Amino acid sequence: MTLIHDFETLQKALAKQAGDGKTIALVPTMGALHAGHGSLISKAQEIADFVVVSIFVNPAQFGKNEDFSSYPRTLEADVKFASAQGADVIYAPDADDVYPEGFSTSVSAGKISTILCGKFRPGHFDGVATIVTKLLLRTMPHIAIFGIKDYQQLCVIERVTQDLDIPVEIVPVATMREDDGLALSSRNAYLSASERETAPFLYETLNNVAREIKYSGVSEALAKGTADLTAKGFKVDYLELCDATTLEPLQKPQEDARLLAAAWLGKTRLIDNIAI
Amino acid sequence: MTLIHDFETLQKALAKQAGDGKTIALVPTMGALHAGHGSLISKAQEIADFVVVSIFVNPAQFGKNEDFSSYPRTLEADVKFASAQGADVIYAPDADDVYPEGFSTSVSAGKISTILCGKFRPGHFDGVATIVTKLLLRTMPHIAIFGIKDYQQLCVIERVTQDLDIPVEIVPVATMREDDGLALSSRNAYLSASERETAPFLYETLNNVAREIKYSGVSEALAKGTADLTAKGFKVDYLELCDATTLEPLQKPQEDARLLAAAWLGKTRLIDNIAI
Repeated sequence: MTLIHDFETLQKALAKQAGDGKTIALVPTMGALHAGHGSLISKAQEIADFVVVSIFVNPAQFGKNEDFSSYPRTLEADVKFASAQGADVIYAPDADDVYPEGFSTSVSAGKISTILCGKFRPGHFDGVATIVTKLLLRTMPHIAIFGIKDYQQLCVIERVTQDLDIPVEIVPVATMREDDGLALSSRNAYLSASERETAPFLYETLNNVAREIKYSGVSEALAKGTADLTAKGFKVDYLELCDATTLEPLQKPQEDARLLAAAWLGKTRLIDNIAI
Repeated sequence: MTLIHDFETLQKALAKQAGDGKTIALVPTMGALHAGHGSLISKAQEIADFVVVSIFVNPAQFGKNEDFSSYPRTLEADVKFASAQGADVIYAPDADDVYPEGFSTSVSAGKISTILCGKFRPGHFDGVATIVTKLLLRTMPHIAIFGIKDYQQLCVIERVTQDLDIPVEIVPVATMREDDGLALSSRNAYLSASERETAPFLYETLNNVAREIKYSGVSEALAKGTADLTAKGFKVDYLELCDATTLEPLQKPQEDARLLAAAWLGKTRLIDNIAI
């Protein structure tokens, strides 16, 4: 495993692999790696010959009052973990390497970036779309792996890579969960002991709503789910049934629908989603 | 020479060249080809093994009240001309091929897209940045050729390709002019006989201002140039001295400065620029 901090060295490391005709996979991460990331890296190793894991806490996707400065940074442990999971290269650039002086370009996926989480985190998905475009074009992987946990992010990336003709196959990987159902997330580390006990209720509620929809209709089921979460102490940003590709809100169930939620527990914002 | 109308066929045509290790050059155009385009294609042929000329009147870079529908479309003549100049492939897609249903992504170069022409044609350079990104990623050329005539467009493309790490070398080619100094442009075809007689005064004024700047200072020279153009019947959108890379306006001359102008003659908008 090679740890690389700059684009020039990355290019050299990749040129040889491409010359050898190897299939390259990229797993973009913000570090603070956990078993969820581990499953992405394992998947990459399973389907590609050469695995690049990028670790970059991207300032451009954090809002002014968000947790950019407090976001967990655990590079040493991440390098060990990613290496053990099968990463061939870990690309952990500084902000200057990614955004040199004068940088001013941005990529936007359009409407899909402005709904759901995009409504509560304006500019977030443009920051995501821009950094992922850059990482894809720096790495030129055949495959890029993204977790379904960040479902809207996945949809945004699929939109952008398709629309801009970026030559890569996007491979989604299922959400990993704790035994009690809580989706693995680096931000779970922010939860207090009592919040941690409450947190799995988000996933439980998604499952309840999914069942409820069949009996009482979409808007009733969503209203009940929101009320249940609020009663448990969550501050709900949204709980919505959406088209699985466009994320347009649905008034009634359809094939390829997705139920998505974002809710705060204290100072921690949790997101989760399930298929319907 | 092969005329191609869809991305899939283009990919097949390019795959073989890439396999043979040939250097590919892209010359993006909107058709209505003239000797100015000819010089771009010749340059491409001189420095690359395989030349792709794209012809696409991109709706996304025209404003609501601009000349999208009246823009000259001369595909048959363009194909003959580009072929004679050395094009190996002409890629002339339909709008559906470029922007399939659901397309919603855009690329923006940021501030540089909002000044000069960007101020008068809001969204224009985002349309340019998006289509050029797509054409570059569809073609994956080693080299892409752009005319200096569209100087701000060139700067926007350099900004975008550098910022997004698109692996291509941008090669600028000097403006071709009529004997009387008028820069070649497809839009010159809109000019009436009397407008055509007046049109070279734009270039003449740029040269006058360039001389004047040395004696009377920037703002005085620009004011005089604008007054001269107005007196001749031009409606001046802007006449500005700018940093040659960022296009930030300059109050005094510097190395790497560029003098740029856009002005209307009747219903025709002319642009031109010179180094200072």
